[in-house]
Amino acid sequence: MSKQPTVLVIGLGAVGTAYGWRIQQGGAKVSVICRSNYSQASNAGIEIKSAIHGEGLFNPDRVFSSCAQSVADGTIYDYVIVCTKSLPNIVDPAEQIKDCILSTKTVIVLAQNGMDIEKPFVRLFPQNPLILTIVYISATYNDDHSVSYSSFIKLEHSIFKKDPLEVSDIDVQTTQDFHQLLLASGIDSIVVNNLNKARWRKLAINASVNPISVLSGGYTSGELLKIKEAHQLMKASILEIVKIAEAVLDEPLYDIPSEQAVDEALGLFANSPNQVPSSTLRDYDNKKPMEHEVIIRNTLNMAKKHKIDVPILETMYALLVMKEAKNI
Amino acid sequence: MSKQPTVLVIGLGAVGTAYGWRIQQGGAKVSVICRSNYSQASNAGIEIKSAIHGEGLFNPDRVFSSCAQSVADGTIYDYVIVCTKSLPNIVDPAEQIKDCILSTKTVIVLAQNGMDIEKPFVRLFPQNPLILTIVYISATYNDDHSVSYSSFIKLEHSIFKKDPLEVSDIDVQTTQDFHQLLLASGIDSIVVNNLNKARWRKLAINASVNPISVLSGGYTSGELLKIKEAHQLMKASILEIVKIAEAVLDEPLYDIPSEQAVDEALGLFANSPNQVPSSTLRDYDNKKPMEHEVIIRNTLNMAKKHKIDVPILETMYALLVMKEAKNI
Repeated sequence: MSKQPTVLVIGLGAVGTAYGWRIQQGGAKVSVICRSNYSQASNAGIEIKSAIHGEGLFNPDRVFSSCAQSVADGTIYDYVIVCTKSLPNIVDPAEQIKDCILSTKTVIVLAQNGMDIEKPFVRLFPQNPLILTIVYISATYNDDHSVSYSSFIKLEHSIFKKDPLEVSDIDVQTTQDFHQLLLASGIDSIVVNNLNKARWRKLAINASVNPISVLSGGYTSGELLKIKEAHQLMKASILEIVKIAEAVLDEPLYDIPSEQAVDEALGLFANSPNQVPSSTLRDYDNKKPMEHEVIIRNTLNMAKKHKIDVPILETMYALLVMKEAKNI
Repeated sequence: MSKQPTVLVIGLGAVGTAYGWRIQQGGAKVSVICRSNYSQASNAGIEIKSAIHGEGLFNPDRVFSSCAQSVADGTIYDYVIVCTKSLPNIVDPAEQIKDCILSTKTVIVLAQNGMDIEKPFVRLFPQNPLILTIVYISATYNDDHSVSYSSFIKLEHSIFKKDPLEVSDIDVQTTQDFHQLLLASGIDSIVVNNLNKARWRKLAINASVNPISVLSGGYTSGELLKIKEAHQLMKASILEIVKIAEAVLDEPLYDIPSEQAVDEALGLFANSPNQVPSSTLRDYDNKKPMEHEVIIRNTLNMAKKHKIDVPILETMYALLVMKEAKNI
């Protein structure tokens, strides 16, 4: 891929903006599809306040409000990076981007949280290369249409194949090209061998902290850690997820004892300087749908399949779904 | 007790008003202690809308705003009926009524929910007769200072002795006198042999439905029963309480299989014509403290003592405490 890569970022929230900006700075041509902030993105751009990459302004090369628009001139994008929430309970996430994909050569990158999020894409785009990522960024989309983030942007990723033996030389090249694109953008890119393990580690935290932040009435994770009951609840629910993960992966999730690993993971929150609300809490406060299906429901389905008893997660899921129904 | 009985009702919410009114109608002299509705009670009285006992107006014989006032003339009450919330995490419930009790002959009646609520009273009033009750009334204190209730007022009660073998002839007489007072008032009075069992049956419902009504964002129990996840959660959490109860009581809680008993208990909600919010939800909505200590915390302590695993209750308790801290 020697020519200037063309990238389409779908969803211009905190994550989409941060990635879009970096990747454009790295030399790619970046188009975006956005809705609520369409006029802001096309007229003034999105301001960036990053402790790591400095101040900046993300002026996308092209701004669209729909998939159809984004390919009206026949553009075949090298990459379509999906940065929207994954809400398969509301709409099929793959159907949503269907019209952007004019070729089976376009690499689809999922920059989303959750388990089994790839399934709708594998179903609808069986020929397209699919890259799954684990996003590590604590960013906030502010009311004044700026995005702040204080941490490094780290991205773990790997090409997705249902059967790892199917990974071809072309797939390896695809992964390397994406890796280079990220590195050129100053993103801490890591190609992982066992993406599922990394995904479960991230999910273990999300599926515990995010619902608790909403159900408890709105605390940041740092605040929760200071409350004895909350700390215990976070730990107990994370350990339920670890049990599911280990049944699914058929190997330990961590290289050290689980309890110790969980304590270390929670310790990162306690020491984090920027206390931002979880993405789920932000969605709740904004009366928007929350990502409970891919973060919790799909995980509970795996627990059921493997006959793992997870009463805490079941409880939080039920409460969250009821709360959402009252909220929206 | 041939003379006109003197009764002091502490707390003029929905329960205190309904009992005070009935007992006055039954021929007793009823004084009350109230706070927020003091001027309403002393000037106009509290209007009653009862499907069973008809319309009425509760004009207490005397209205006070403190314990000291209520005994300033030296009155020794035959009965002090405690109808306030039990919030031992905030204030000692026995200390609160200390100044009303001028004699060890005064019968203290606790018309409150929860486990172990008697402990502070036994400690502070070891000589006074203590009657524990199970209140069955679905009543609402309305914003216009009226109280509505559509169900019969049923009261299960019994004298409390730590060791049942200590019940004396005088205790039996005390129980009978109270029973007669209630019957004269048109209250469905039932003297129970095994009060603990009745208490656990009531608690099993309260400790499940009440926190769920708050944590889910505000549903009545009838509404909750129509939501699959909520129904499952209620049933699962009630069954946790049944496990604790059976460990504490050392016998089955119900005469039929627990699952069936729980289904029947929940069925009563589904078929109830008046869908009112739980008392806990009303407290939450009014930004007042909730009764989670006596309803859940004390129950969790018993679970711990008997080594019963109750993850759902632990989860709901933690969330409720955090939510209260944000709310008040």
